[in-house]
Amino acid sequence: MPCFSCWKLDTQPIVRPMVFRKDTRTMLSRKELFKDTLKKAAHAWKRIVELRLTGPEDAQHKPQAFSTIYLFYVGGSKLAEAGMFVPAIKGQGTEEQQKKWLPMAYKFQIIGCYAQTELGHGSNVQGLETTATFDPSTDEFVMHSPTLTSSKWWPGGLGKASTHAVVYARLITEGKDYGIHGFIVQLRSLDDHSPLPGITLGDIGGKFGSGAYNSMDNGVLRFDHVRIPRDQMLMRLSQVTREGKYVHSDVPKQLLYGTMVYVRQTIVADASKALSRAVCIAVRYSAIRKQFGSQAGGPETQVLNYKTQQSRLFPLLASAYAYRFVGQWLKWLYTDVTQKLEAKDYSTLPEAHACTAGLKSVTTSATADAIEECRKLCGGHGYLNSSGLPELFAVYVPACTYEGDNVVLLLQVARFLMKTVAQVATGKQPVGTIAYMGNIQHLMQCKSAVNTAEDWLNPAAIKEVFEARALRMAVNCAQNISKVPSQEEGFSELSPDLLEAAVAHVQLIIVTKFIEKLQEDIPGPGVKEQLQKLCSIYALHLLHKHLGDFLSTGCVTARQGALANEQLGKLYAQVRPNAVALVDAFDYTDHYLGSVLGRYDGDVYPALYEEAWKDPLNETVVPDGYQEHLRPLLKQQLKLSRL
Amino acid sequence: MPCFSCWKLDTQPIVRPMVFRKDTRTMLSRKELFKDTLKKAAHAWKRIVELRLTGPEDAQHKPQAFSTIYLFYVGGSKLAEAGMFVPAIKGQGTEEQQKKWLPMAYKFQIIGCYAQTELGHGSNVQGLETTATFDPSTDEFVMHSPTLTSSKWWPGGLGKASTHAVVYARLITEGKDYGIHGFIVQLRSLDDHSPLPGITLGDIGGKFGSGAYNSMDNGVLRFDHVRIPRDQMLMRLSQVTREGKYVHSDVPKQLLYGTMVYVRQTIVADASKALSRAVCIAVRYSAIRKQFGSQAGGPETQVLNYKTQQSRLFPLLASAYAYRFVGQWLKWLYTDVTQKLEAKDYSTLPEAHACTAGLKSVTTSATADAIEECRKLCGGHGYLNSSGLPELFAVYVPACTYEGDNVVLLLQVARFLMKTVAQVATGKQPVGTIAYMGNIQHLMQCKSAVNTAEDWLNPAAIKEVFEARALRMAVNCAQNISKVPSQEEGFSELSPDLLEAAVAHVQLIIVTKFIEKLQEDIPGPGVKEQLQKLCSIYALHLLHKHLGDFLSTGCVTARQGALANEQLGKLYAQVRPNAVALVDAFDYTDHYLGSVLGRYDGDVYPALYEEAWKDPLNETVVPDGYQEHLRPLLKQQLKLSRL
Repeated sequence: MPCFSCWKLDTQPIVRPMVFRKDTRTMLSRKELFKDTLKKAAHAWKRIVELRLTGPEDAQHKPQAFSTIYLFYVGGSKLAEAGMFVPAIKGQGTEEQQKKWLPMAYKFQIIGCYAQTELGHGSNVQGLETTATFDPSTDEFVMHSPTLTSSKWWPGGLGKASTHAVVYARLITEGKDYGIHGFIVQLRSLDDHSPLPGITLGDIGGKFGSGAYNSMDNGVLRFDHVRIPRDQMLMRLSQVTREGKYVHSDVPKQLLYGTMVYVRQTIVADASKALSRAVCIAVRYSAIRKQFGSQAGGPETQVLNYKTQQSRLFPLLASAYAYRFVGQWLKWLYTDVTQKLEAKDYSTLPEAHACTAGLKSVTTSATADAIEECRKLCGGHGYLNSSGLPELFAVYVPACTYEGDNVVLLLQVARFLMKTVAQVATGKQPVGTIAYMGNIQHLMQCKSAVNTAEDWLNPAAIKEVFEARALRMAVNCAQNISKVPSQEEGFSELSPDLLEAAVAHVQLIIVTKFIEKLQEDIPGPGVKEQLQKLCSIYALHLLHKHLGDFLSTGCVTARQGALANEQLGKLYAQVRPNAVALVDAFDYTDHYLGSVLGRYDGDVYPALYEEAWKDPLNETVVPDGYQEHLRPLLKQQLKLSRL
Repeated sequence: MPCFSCWKLDTQPIVRPMVFRKDTRTMLSRKELFKDTLKKAAHAWKRIVELRLTGPEDAQHKPQAFSTIYLFYVGGSKLAEAGMFVPAIKGQGTEEQQKKWLPMAYKFQIIGCYAQTELGHGSNVQGLETTATFDPSTDEFVMHSPTLTSSKWWPGGLGKASTHAVVYARLITEGKDYGIHGFIVQLRSLDDHSPLPGITLGDIGGKFGSGAYNSMDNGVLRFDHVRIPRDQMLMRLSQVTREGKYVHSDVPKQLLYGTMVYVRQTIVADASKALSRAVCIAVRYSAIRKQFGSQAGGPETQVLNYKTQQSRLFPLLASAYAYRFVGQWLKWLYTDVTQKLEAKDYSTLPEAHACTAGLKSVTTSATADAIEECRKLCGGHGYLNSSGLPELFAVYVPACTYEGDNVVLLLQVARFLMKTVAQVATGKQPVGTIAYMGNIQHLMQCKSAVNTAEDWLNPAAIKEVFEARALRMAVNCAQNISKVPSQEEGFSELSPDLLEAAVAHVQLIIVTKFIEKLQEDIPGPGVKEQLQKLCSIYALHLLHKHLGDFLSTGCVTARQGALANEQLGKLYAQVRPNAVALVDAFDYTDHYLGSVLGRYDGDVYPALYEEAWKDPLNETVVPDGYQEHLRPLLKQQLKLSRL
């Protein structure tokens, strides 16, 4: 089986045609970059066909193969939106619609995007302005953009590549607005790719970074009374009849949650991937880079040996592992949710939704910050594109905003927490990741029994204080909200505190899943011990970082906090000898990492030097502009105007 | 007087030739961008000459005029290194050398850069490898790059523009290595700009962002036995005689500190400027952007009204003001240090050094994070280059690394703190920003008397807990270090804690200077009241963020911490009505801000829409690459190879 993350076959030698080269991507102009991306995508698809990954015998790999196209599209990251055309039709289309549209999409006879957000409307889907008005005289919907702010804005792949889109618009029939629904709309001619009449299409302009998402044609779309057949409304959940009647189907709305859990699970997995790439680069380079500490002209000290470097870097290494394990667990959760949905058991959905929303928010925010921290940990050279880190950051950060803004998602988690606190008071037993709240009697009163630094290595000791902290913060918020006359107003007033309570809850989930993972068998001698150290680092660095939470909720004393910090220092020293092995274990190829600082062979300086000369500015020794601007300045011959 | 930050004359109309347009900079290729920058720099200099800002009568504006060139160089930020050619000669050159070189530099007859860092050596100047070996037979120094890692790497302006450099190298004479010294070296012919024999010059390649520092030719330089006259060694502090004897002059080394204080003061002022730009954009856009909260189809709520938005944004607004005031105070400190140096009074130097190092570190780190937070606070649109925020971030972040890596600087502050703690124990009275440590008896034992949320509005209550926290953290570190047999080892072991103690000390300085500023007269009705609220927000958000410090050192109780948080919420509500006025007060022109989201007129959406069409990708409706790659894919005509 080919590995999609590094594009090599399990059997050597590595097959890597030049078409996939990445090293010059940041030097291309926007047009060149986009063209290069189309080339990569087409070639990737060609390879997928050649390797016969599209046949029915390979059904389980299909989504993976499909997303590989998008992988090249944005140079290392997957685009959620562009990848959501198919899931939208799968989730919201009737069987007939799926049969008609999906095969074309799978074969790239059409290219679809997911057109939801508008210029004036992002997270709040209910605020969208685009209209789809049913005209019974022709059995068509009329798609229209009534205002400037209703222009579709951001959908990936919309600007230049897509031929079709799932467009979300207000469904209006019989004079009544039935709210937001999805419609399949053809945007461009399949003959010559020109936009169809009434449709305005364009790219929304340059984005963060030199390459990054600039290889993606996030687009703008406007409709001027564009007509589509009625049967292009996605009709699984509700329909408009030939006469224009709006009717609900008997398919429960909850089925849509499955897709959401799936998408968010992939985002958490991606967080682990992006973070581990950054950490791999920073750890390897910190082992190569030497600075200060020379005694009498001897060699300088490896940067990785400095406690300050370790205390910033090792928690990120631990986080990369933590997110990987919680991501694996989310895969299980998705299977579980899917099975329950099929059995029409919706009981665990709110918990699964809160859990995935929270994990998406916490892991993406932390990963974005961590990539930038890794860049800083590489000193000046981390600022060079050849380090790979600027692009990794620029391509990653949108994850904090797309698929639910991270703050909006945390507030959803907080709502769920408040609901659960209220239910626990009535004696209802919470399930899943929130089950600990059932232990309210103990958790509201317990005090950590930790007495030595080593006591913090006990997973039970960690779990107890993380549970107590999360629960007490939630209960605190609930109590403070109840003091405000209106519940809604109280929630809004307390929202900054609610965000913190939600984060505490999600961090507990991650810590718990890490601990649970280590209760399984882990193959390889000594591997489990190393992972246990990382687990402790992950938990204790959070305890140290959020010490205010633990102290103010009274589950930990100042002395115990100091012991945790002391233990953290010891753990750093223990992880140091295996740090490079722990990032080598991610098994990333140099091609995939795309970083001269993170090279497996550690031969960083010649690579940096060599890479520099590729810059277009080095095509000539004397720069373009010397004759016109620099020489007159130096020769004091700038022509001055009379004032 | 023209204003250099916005390039307009005080008298209307605004004179802004098209040469200074910035809106398309992120769309240019590297070569175009660099050429455009040369054009801007040459034109800026032409205007400076025309406006007669170079004459002796304008001496006080000279450094400002000079730095304006560099301002255009990197599109909004000043480059410390490129700007340090002149200060280096001023500080380390003899009077004769200054007389010879400075007038040429001032007139741009030569362009100089500051070549210190090497491929393998950054912060540790003593580790540099470039050699300058004196040859008494010709009365010359031989400049040489003995290894790959000794290549000069990073100096701004070195790659393409500079004709000269101050090069730092190991001085070797009579077979002995006398360590690092500065040398003025001509790099390029003044006739045709080609590199002189034995000199290799190039650009080090692309950097973070689309425009940002890519307009700057950070360079690489290698010497192959290049000879320069002996009198081009900077000889103010030490000389090499005609015979090759190394002699120290009687000029005290401390004089160099003046330059360092000056440079760091400008960096703190720049932090305030960059932060206030980002905050201005985010506040204005948050007042325009609406989302959620609509009741029955009514308008949505301004994002700025959400408590979560306020709790993230207003502390940054307060920080922008805090940094501005501490920056102003640093200007005074620079004058004070200069006067004392002239009077040969070096007593306050260690304190001034620690204080400027710490402020540089804390303000730049916080500003880099804050710009990115402001970008996130603008939602998806903040990711567009037209928001101005990606470039502002990319151009700003190097400030965390250059002029002393922020972690290295904090460790210097920590060393000073440990020294002061030891001295206080012997009864010595500390001065300046560390004077509070003299109050050790009280500060080690005091407990905050705060009893209501409003009590936290009292500056004395704030100052007391910030002093107690900083002192106790420093004393804690000192005690823990003393438990380790070797002092040096103890310092290294405890360095992560020492960083935190240093941050606590620096935050106290910023809080104190804000409070002191408000004891002065502030013109304008109601202005002082608004600033007082911002001062409280600045201090209390730090207290909340670092609650663990305050609780674990015992100067604040959990209840008092909760009261601080409660007061913070009230302050946000009070600042909300004036938030837009408080950013308008920065008085930035739209041209200077360079952000469609931060427009003064708030007409954001038409501007976003219009800006999109400028992208080169929109030059054609059907993208380049359609015929070659997209059409064959869609038409199922990709030619498959036989496997």
